[in-house]
Amino acid sequence: MKRWLQTGATLLIGAGFGASVSRLLSARDGQEEEGAGLLSRVPVVPVPTVQASELTVSPGGSAVVMKYGFPSLANIKTRESYITSYDPRTRTASWVIERLNPASLTGPSDRKYCEFKEDDSVHEFHRATNADYRGSGFDRGHLAAAANHKWSQKAMEDTFYLSNVAPQNPHLNQKTWNNLEKQCRSLTKRYLNVYVCTGPLYLPRQEADGKLYVRYQVIGQHHVAVPTHFFKVLILEQTDGRGVELRSYVLPNEPIDERVPLERFLVPIETIERASGLLFVPNIMKRTSSLQAITNR
Amino acid sequence: MKRWLQTGATLLIGAGFGASVSRLLSARDGQEEEGAGLLSRVPVVPVPTVQASELTVSPGGSAVVMKYGFPSLANIKTRESYITSYDPRTRTASWVIERLNPASLTGPSDRKYCEFKEDDSVHEFHRATNADYRGSGFDRGHLAAAANHKWSQKAMEDTFYLSNVAPQNPHLNQKTWNNLEKQCRSLTKRYLNVYVCTGPLYLPRQEADGKLYVRYQVIGQHHVAVPTHFFKVLILEQTDGRGVELRSYVLPNEPIDERVPLERFLVPIETIERASGLLFVPNIMKRTSSLQAITNR
Repeated sequence: MKRWLQTGATLLIGAGFGASVSRLLSARDGQEEEGAGLLSRVPVVPVPTVQASELTVSPGGSAVVMKYGFPSLANIKTRESYITSYDPRTRTASWVIERLNPASLTGPSDRKYCEFKEDDSVHEFHRATNADYRGSGFDRGHLAAAANHKWSQKAMEDTFYLSNVAPQNPHLNQKTWNNLEKQCRSLTKRYLNVYVCTGPLYLPRQEADGKLYVRYQVIGQHHVAVPTHFFKVLILEQTDGRGVELRSYVLPNEPIDERVPLERFLVPIETIERASGLLFVPNIMKRTSSLQAITNR
Repeated sequence: MKRWLQTGATLLIGAGFGASVSRLLSARDGQEEEGAGLLSRVPVVPVPTVQASELTVSPGGSAVVMKYGFPSLANIKTRESYITSYDPRTRTASWVIERLNPASLTGPSDRKYCEFKEDDSVHEFHRATNADYRGSGFDRGHLAAAANHKWSQKAMEDTFYLSNVAPQNPHLNQKTWNNLEKQCRSLTKRYLNVYVCTGPLYLPRQEADGKLYVRYQVIGQHHVAVPTHFFKVLILEQTDGRGVELRSYVLPNEPIDERVPLERFLVPIETIERASGLLFVPNIMKRTSSLQAITNR
């Protein structure tokens, strides 16, 4: 059922979704225009492929992770292992981008020396604390995963800033979300670099009155927002340097049966771009002439 | 019942709220720390007062409106009559700042030549349209008010960008909110300049399960967020140039009996700073040694 399509500058727009995600799209108007909208954004004239000099394998330090651009430009923070944009209203990141490859996954770093910590670069009014999570029933869910950054103890420790964390259903965090993180790491065997962008979503749903509402819990004294969903956008660099593949996932922030294949949560990138207020494709298209979107039909 | 206090660098923290706003604060933990928190942010060493050269009266053009700083730095747009920070996720502004004085309120501009228009500087995914509002039951509520910018037809027309607009309850828009806008203009008779910062809020409230939730409607194909509340922060420059006064209001996005005095909606600035993710006081304190916060007890 999976269809892969690769052309010079063509995006394949699929429409396969996990059951829990389907309510998101059933609530959208104009869904039928999605394909046309995305295709119209792809330039007709091919641009040069990425430079060979950029295709070296190196650890996942922050200096290189932004190759495919910034999804937004607000409150950018640079860390050893990732770059993030912070949302002071929700007290979590808008997105976190990291780069995985075999080198970044290997090293002596140990999670037992890491502790979740406040991000004191954020004003105290807008900063999550460990106390906010205590007794909330939610895990402190990493956005950039700790296990992605064994290359450096500092890089691993930086993933424990609470600005790289969002309230996550414990079952999701420990099961299906963990499986998705493992899959990201596994893909480093087949791709030169795996760029991972992770973030929260606050998606509307239809209520009994027929209208659409965004509704999400806030926890703790600082009112840390509990996302309704999480997204992961994977930008996969082919080993021959000829192009990139794109996989974009949306998972609901609730228990998911592990038997549901991860492919069921693939969504068109446009779904995430519209819901998050972020943009990915325009930036990616500046860096490659061959973008292949992988979805599930 | 109104208490005014002015010292070199002291903020009076009041706790008077309109009845509709009280649920906001009843839902907050640690409220008793509010006074201490704010006071601790006020520098002990006085800074020089503003330069006399900056205290000239001129129309409310955008070049001068940011004297007291940017509440946030994301997606800044400069218009003839105001400066704004756009939130692509909610499809409305995070804040809009304008400067009012007798000169900005006077001129030949006519609203009948103005029409609400899309802001094509925003990506179409994240842009509100007139169609989004049609049949929604909400007014297109100006954030920077049209009548504040009679000094220039272009300035008035710029207030009709839908990025300067949010879905607003029609009764609120036409009654109490309109009265608040009139009060802002009236204050130009007593102050050198009236800086007005306006924006949406999405405030949590306690639901039946005892937990706090943010819940707001979204309208139209582009899912334009309907704020639960609106804020207005007024920075009032004294005519002798000796200091500034601060008034900060929060009004619920629902019908309000016009007989309720506007003073009932005064809140401590910290309430808005915490809820919005914005910061006002640190920037203002850089520009004056005499800040007087006016609240209602």
